[in-house]
Amino acid sequence: MLEARVKQASVLKKLLDAIKELVTDGNLDCTDEGIALQAMDNSHVALVSLKLVAEQFESYRCDRNMPLGVNLGSLTKILKCAKDNDVVTFKAPDDADSLGMVFESPKEDRVGEYEMKLMDIDQEHLGIPDTQYDATITMSSAEFQRICRDLAALGESVKIEASKEGVRFSSEGEVGNGSVLLKQTAGTDRSSGGGSKKAQVKRDPDEEDEEEEEEEKPEVDEDEEGEEEQDDEDRPKKRKAANGKAKGAKKAKNTDSTDEVGVSIILEKQVSLTFSLKYLSNFAKSAPLAREVSLHMSNDVPLLVQFDFEQGTLQFFLAPKISDE
Amino acid sequence: MLEARVKQASVLKKLLDAIKELVTDGNLDCTDEGIALQAMDNSHVALVSLKLVAEQFESYRCDRNMPLGVNLGSLTKILKCAKDNDVVTFKAPDDADSLGMVFESPKEDRVGEYEMKLMDIDQEHLGIPDTQYDATITMSSAEFQRICRDLAALGESVKIEASKEGVRFSSEGEVGNGSVLLKQTAGTDRSSGGGSKKAQVKRDPDEEDEEEEEEEKPEVDEDEEGEEEQDDEDRPKKRKAANGKAKGAKKAKNTDSTDEVGVSIILEKQVSLTFSLKYLSNFAKSAPLAREVSLHMSNDVPLLVQFDFEQGTLQFFLAPKISDE
Amino acid sequence: MLEARVKQASVLKKLLDAIKELVTDGNLDCTDEGIALQAMDNSHVALVSLKLVAEQFESYRCDRNMPLGVNLGSLTKILKCAKDNDVVTFKAPDDADSLGMVFESPKEDRVGEYEMKLMDIDQEHLGIPDTQYDATITMSSAEFQRICRDLAALGESVKIEASKEGVRFSSEGEVGNGSVLLKQTAGTDRSSGGGSKKAQVKRDPDEEDEEEEEEEKPEVDEDEEGEEEQDDEDRPKKRKAANGKAKGAKKAKNTDSTDEVGVSIILEKQVSLTFSLKYLSNFAKSAPLAREVSLHMSNDVPLLVQFDFEQGTLQFFLAPKISDE
Repeated sequence: MLEARVKQASVLKKLLDAIKELVTDGNLDCTDEGIALQAMDNSHVALVSLKLVAEQFESYRCDRNMPLGVNLGSLTKILKCAKDNDVVTFKAPDDADSLGMVFESPKEDRVGEYEMKLMDIDQEHLGIPDTQYDATITMSSAEFQRICRDLAALGESVKIEASKEGVRFSSEGEVGNGSVLLKQTAGTDRSSGGGSKKAQVKRDPDEEDEEEEEEEKPEVDEDEEGEEEQDDEDRPKKRKAANGKAKGAKKAKNTDSTDEVGVSIILEKQVSLTFSLKYLSNFAKSAPLAREVSLHMSNDVPLLVQFDFEQGTLQFFLAPKISDE
Repeated sequence: MLEARVKQASVLKKLLDAIKELVTDGNLDCTDEGIALQAMDNSHVALVSLKLVAEQFESYRCDRNMPLGVNLGSLTKILKCAKDNDVVTFKAPDDADSLGMVFESPKEDRVGEYEMKLMDIDQEHLGIPDTQYDATITMSSAEFQRICRDLAALGESVKIEASKEGVRFSSEGEVGNGSVLLKQTAGTDRSSGGGSKKAQVKRDPDEEDEEEEEEEKPEVDEDEEGEEEQDDEDRPKKRKAANGKAKGAKKAKNTDSTDEVGVSIILEKQVSLTFSLKYLSNFAKSAPLAREVSLHMSNDVPLLVQFDFEQGTLQFFLAPKISDE
Repeated sequence: MLEARVKQASVLKKLLDAIKELVTDGNLDCTDEGIALQAMDNSHVALVSLKLVAEQFESYRCDRNMPLGVNLGSLTKILKCAKDNDVVTFKAPDDADSLGMVFESPKEDRVGEYEMKLMDIDQEHLGIPDTQYDATITMSSAEFQRICRDLAALGESVKIEASKEGVRFSSEGEVGNGSVLLKQTAGTDRSSGGGSKKAQVKRDPDEEDEEEEEEEKPEVDEDEEGEEEQDDEDRPKKRKAANGKAKGAKKAKNTDSTDEVGVSIILEKQVSLTFSLKYLSNFAKSAPLAREVSLHMSNDVPLLVQFDFEQGTLQFFLAPKISDE
C-alpha cells in the first residue's frame, strides 16, 4: 500500500500545471524511493521525467512497488479542489483501481476526500543514458520563461549559444530577428577552473540500476566537494543544482532569501544548438516550481532542462533541431 | 412616486451580478416597505426572492405601490456606469415608463444621470409557504462558493448531508468522486439544546399577509432571545442569520471584523438531499454580498439558500433532485 | 544615421498600445527635431499624430531626415521583448532596410538586440491647419476613458457639451439614455478672465513651417506667462497642457504627486458636438501615457484629443457627427 503525505497542496498543483499540457496519461511509479513519472510528451518529441523523493514527503510509506496509471487532466481537476496550504495525503491499497486523496485544512476543520479512477497504462520505461554535458547554464526560471515567450513572438526556433561571455538566445522570423544575451554573473565562471569537472546527469532507467547508482553517488559527491573547497567561498550554492544531479538536489532552491538569481555557466566547450520554442515554452511553464532552472547541453545529445524544487526534480529532454548552419 | 437613495453603488452591482444570470426580466415591487423582486429563474427551476428593506436605504420614499418591470441585463449595464462608492438615487414618478438613476461621486464633482426604459411584465407573485426546516447550516459564503466550484469539476449533483458531526458535500462523476466535510465550529451546536426551536423562514407572499407576519414576529423574537440568554455568551451573533428570517436580519453580516466565519448547524433531524450543482453554483455567486450564507433544508421541501446583507435579504429556492438511494 | 535612446521602454510600449489598433502601418519621420508619426486610422476617419521631441530622448542623433516605414504590429511585438525599465536604443543607418533596437537592463546584465524589417510606405503628410478652439477641456485621462467605456454600453455616439457649469457627456440607445456631468474644479474657470485668450493648437505640417512656428512661440509663451502672473498661484500647472501646444509641453504631466486631476475648461463659447464612441474609446486607450487629457473643440472643426507625456505629444483628430438636433 501507498500512503504519502505532502505538506502543501500548492507544490502539487504547480507540478501538474507544469506537465499536464505535455503529458495526458502516465504511470506514477511508486517505490520506497519515492514517486516517479516518466513519459514522452503527446507528440513523442520531448521526454518528461519527474521524481518526488520519499524523504521530502511529510510522511511516506510504500510497501510494494506499484505503478498508478493516472490521467493528468483528472488529477489536475481533483487537486484544484485542494486549497494551496492544505495537507495532501495520497492513499492506495495494493492492486488499487483508484487513488485516494485527502485534503486537510491546516486547522483541520475541513476535510476533502477524493477518489480518482486509475487506468492501466502500458508504458515502457526508457533508459536515459548517463550524459556528460559540455555546457550547463543555471539561470532564473522566470527569466527563462520570459525569453521563451519573447522570442516565440518572433520565430519558431531558438538558438542557444553558451560561451564564456554568457548565454545567447536568438530567433528569427518574418517580422525580423532578435537575440537576448545574458551575461554570466561575476565570479561564477567555472570553466576556467583547473579540474575538468563535467556536469553529469545520472538517471535511473529502472530499479535494477538503482543500486549501481547508489554506489556511484558517494564517489561523485566527493569529487564535487573536493573541487568546491578549492574554489573561493562566494561561489553560490546553486552550483549543485547546476550539476543537474537529481539525486543530489535535496535542498529547495526556491527558499533562498535573495530575489536576484544570477547566471552561472559551466563550460567544457562552446555549444550552439537550436530548439523548438514551442517545447521550450512548455518546459518554462514550470517556473513557478523553482527560482532556478538549469539547461544542460552537448552538441550531440538532447537538451536537459531541469527544475529542482523542495519535493524533488522535474526534468525535460528535447532533441535539438538540425542546425541550418 | 419613488425616490430611494443607496449609499454605495457597489452593493447594487454585487446584487445584479448575483442574479442577472438566473433572471432576465422581473418586476421591482416598490412599496413603503422597500423594494422586492421575486422571479423564477429562466429555466423555471429555481426561485429568486430579493428584498431591500426601506429602513436600510439612505433615504426612501414610495407613496404608492408600483411594480417597475426591468430587464436585469440593462440595469446591470447602467449600474456599471456608477463607480463603486457613488451614491445612487432611483427615481420614478407614478406611472413611470422609465426608471431614473442618479450616480453622484462622494465629492459631488461628477453626476451621472441615466434613464432606463421599463417594461410591462405580467408576473404572478408566488406565495411561498412558511416552512420549518429540519436543518439550518450557516457557513462562510466564500467557502460555499468554493465547494460548489470544486465539486462541479467532478459531477453534476451535490449531496448535502447535515449531521451533528458537520455538513458534508459530496459529488461523483466520470473522473471519480469526492466529498468535503465541514466540521461544526466548537460551541455552536444548537440541536443538543433543550428547546426544540425550529429554524423558521417566513416569507410574505403579498401585502395582505404582511400584517399577519407583523403579529407573529414579536413572539418569535422573544422565543429566540429567551433561548439565547440560556446559552453561553460566546455564541456568535450570526445565529440570527441562521434563522433565515429576512425580517430580523437588519444588521449587516459582512461588517464583522473577524475574518473567520465558522460553521454552525441547527439540526432538528438529519437531512440528506441532492441538488443540481449548476444552480447552487449560480446561487453561490452572491458570495460577495455577504460573508455568511445559510442553507435551510428539510426532506420534503425546496432548499433555501439565503444571503443577509446590509440592505436586505437575497433568497434562492431550489427543489432537491430525486435521490438515487 | 539615426541613434535615439529612450530611458524607459514602458513609455514606448504604452504608446504602441495606444495607437496600434488605429493604425497598421506608418512612417516614423526622423529628423533632428525628433521622431514623428502621422497617419489616418485604418478606416480613414481619424487622424493620429505623434511627436517624440529630440530633447526628451536620453540621447538623440539624426543626421539626415529619413522616413522609417514600420508595421506597428511588428514593432509592438518586438517592444514587448523589452522589460519596462529597459533602456531602448533605436539604430538605423542611412538608407536602412531594417530598424535596429537594443534593449538593455538597468544592471546591464541582459542585452536584447532586435532587427525589424522596414517597409516603403507612400504617405502624404497632411497639413493640419492652425485652429483656434472655442473650448478646451482638461481632465483626468482615466476619467475620460471610464466615461467613454460607460457610455459605449448605452449608445454609439456621445454628445460633448462644454459650458461654464462643466462638461457633459451624454449618450442614448435602446436600453435608455445617460449623461455624465463633470463640474469644473473651483478656481480654474478661465473664460471669465479679462483677456480673450484662445486655446491654440499649432501643428507643423512640414519642416518649412517649423521656423515660422519657432518665431511665433516666444510671443505665445510670453502671453501665457503674463496671464499666469495675473492669476492666483493655486492655479494648477496643468494649464499649459490645456493650451494643447505640443511645443510647449516639455514637462511630464504624469509625474505630479497629486492623485487628483481636476477639470478645467477654457471656454470661448459654448460648444456641443457629437462623436463616435468607438473612436473616442480608442483614443482613450492612451490614458496610461498621461494623467491628463485635453479635449479641444470648435463647432466646425474636428475634435482634438491630446495627451502630453514626458517624451512628447500624442494627438487624435476626429470629425464630429452631423448632430440630430
